[in-house]
Amino acid sequence: MQQNTKTPSTNPNDAIGVFDSGIGGLTVVQALNQHMPNEHIVYFGDTARVPYGVKSPETITRFALQITRFLLEKENLKLLIIACNSMSAVAIEQVKKISPVPVLEVIGAGAKNAVEKTVNRTVGIIGTPATIKSKAYPKAIVGLDAGIDVIEQACPLFVPLVEEGWTDNSVALLTAWQYLEPMLNSKIDTLVLGCTHYPLLKPLLGEIAGKSVNLVDSAQAIAAQASDTLEKSALVRTDTQPAYSRYYVTDAPELFTQLGSRFLSQPPSDVNLVSL
Amino acid sequence: MQQNTKTPSTNPNDAIGVFDSGIGGLTVVQALNQHMPNEHIVYFGDTARVPYGVKSPETITRFALQITRFLLEKENLKLLIIACNSMSAVAIEQVKKISPVPVLEVIGAGAKNAVEKTVNRTVGIIGTPATIKSKAYPKAIVGLDAGIDVIEQACPLFVPLVEEGWTDNSVALLTAWQYLEPMLNSKIDTLVLGCTHYPLLKPLLGEIAGKSVNLVDSAQAIAAQASDTLEKSALVRTDTQPAYSRYYVTDAPELFTQLGSRFLSQPPSDVNLVSL
Repeated sequence: MQQNTKTPSTNPNDAIGVFDSGIGGLTVVQALNQHMPNEHIVYFGDTARVPYGVKSPETITRFALQITRFLLEKENLKLLIIACNSMSAVAIEQVKKISPVPVLEVIGAGAKNAVEKTVNRTVGIIGTPATIKSKAYPKAIVGLDAGIDVIEQACPLFVPLVEEGWTDNSVALLTAWQYLEPMLNSKIDTLVLGCTHYPLLKPLLGEIAGKSVNLVDSAQAIAAQASDTLEKSALVRTDTQPAYSRYYVTDAPELFTQLGSRFLSQPPSDVNLVSL
Repeated sequence: MQQNTKTPSTNPNDAIGVFDSGIGGLTVVQALNQHMPNEHIVYFGDTARVPYGVKSPETITRFALQITRFLLEKENLKLLIIACNSMSAVAIEQVKKISPVPVLEVIGAGAKNAVEKTVNRTVGIIGTPATIKSKAYPKAIVGLDAGIDVIEQACPLFVPLVEEGWTDNSVALLTAWQYLEPMLNSKIDTLVLGCTHYPLLKPLLGEIAGKSVNLVDSAQAIAAQASDTLEKSALVRTDTQPAYSRYYVTDAPELFTQLGSRFLSQPPSDVNLVSL
């Protein structure tokens, strides 16, 4: 296996690399833009093979390593972010092995934030079937604080609802009720949105969960963590030239651009079709 | 490009090959089992790359040709059925070019059946975004009868609903209402279920559409067409040994077996993991 062939970045002008199985990771890009508007961002969405949530750990890991190699060869990066819960759950160790730059991932960031927020130490996790099945969130949370109760619920309809743009109609409301009711009955005080699509359902989920439940948005959590990491390693970009964003997708760049405007303040530009 | 290298089958003991992007094509297998329980069936589900509905025509065609070549090399076939609407819509001509045996596809079968059934000549089509965008059903229907009005509606939430097993709850009902209401207001008398997952929603869709609307189930339509084709070419299997069913998938055979029991009378056995 290829090992850290490049040396670690020491250049603040290098970009932050973000990758996901498809379009959902754009919630992380949006959060990065809010926290650090002066950073260059390079995004990879594997739109030809999305979704990963139903694939095996071996296949997901193989795809994650292909994407990592592509980004490291193609771009000058100072930080890598795995914005996909499925890849974070199964491939983080392997990706770290081949990356010369620090690798952050959404599950660790969300778990840390949940542990900080919960008071009654009862945390709910919602995610895709693959993420829930991986038990990655309970492992990460219990690793930080063994006394926390974690209740999980797979919500396979949330991603298609977001992609249909049904984030506040009666179908979305009824679906969210079905999924959340058992957790709310178990008195969770913190709910982790364990999928990069879910921040778009935040107003609806907040309405159902009520004010007594903290929502943990892993896109926000990982953006805060990325900002910390860059500050600590003195890699914050201070150049006054405008920052760029560049996107790589493996299929259907037009659809990516079109759907992308649901996730970002403005539609993604500089979208490039590539194959792995 | 590879062209009809094998000679056409003349052996009734050869199998019917059925392929799909994932698991949905099992509705076709179930219909074939009902119509022709004595036929061998070989099924291919590209579960590592499902769904195709959001991919480009070029990518879908490339995948369809890979699967066709795999089945023709691996198995002795007398008939090929494309059980996937996305592949039927964009790849049928290319698949026919490389297949020495007849190729049937769900869109042609469904369109023919709809033309036979409609009286007021107003037909509704529901399908995935890719199928609807391809305009393949209107083209096929108008090709048979230019005087028929076709009204289309993409229903991206139906596949995830079926895979979640929510085929008769309030979420499914409300979703189906949202999608069907405009078509019903336009007085369709025939509704084509233009996706292989949709037969599992048939009771619900029938309830909403009412008795005055004919439902065209393309799995049933293509099974009838397959039966005709074999009879006309004297390739009906008459051997009294039990018929076999064999399945190839590109990822997660356990999940395929588990979800498969929603589609078939009994869970699929002889499920083989392969890579293309």
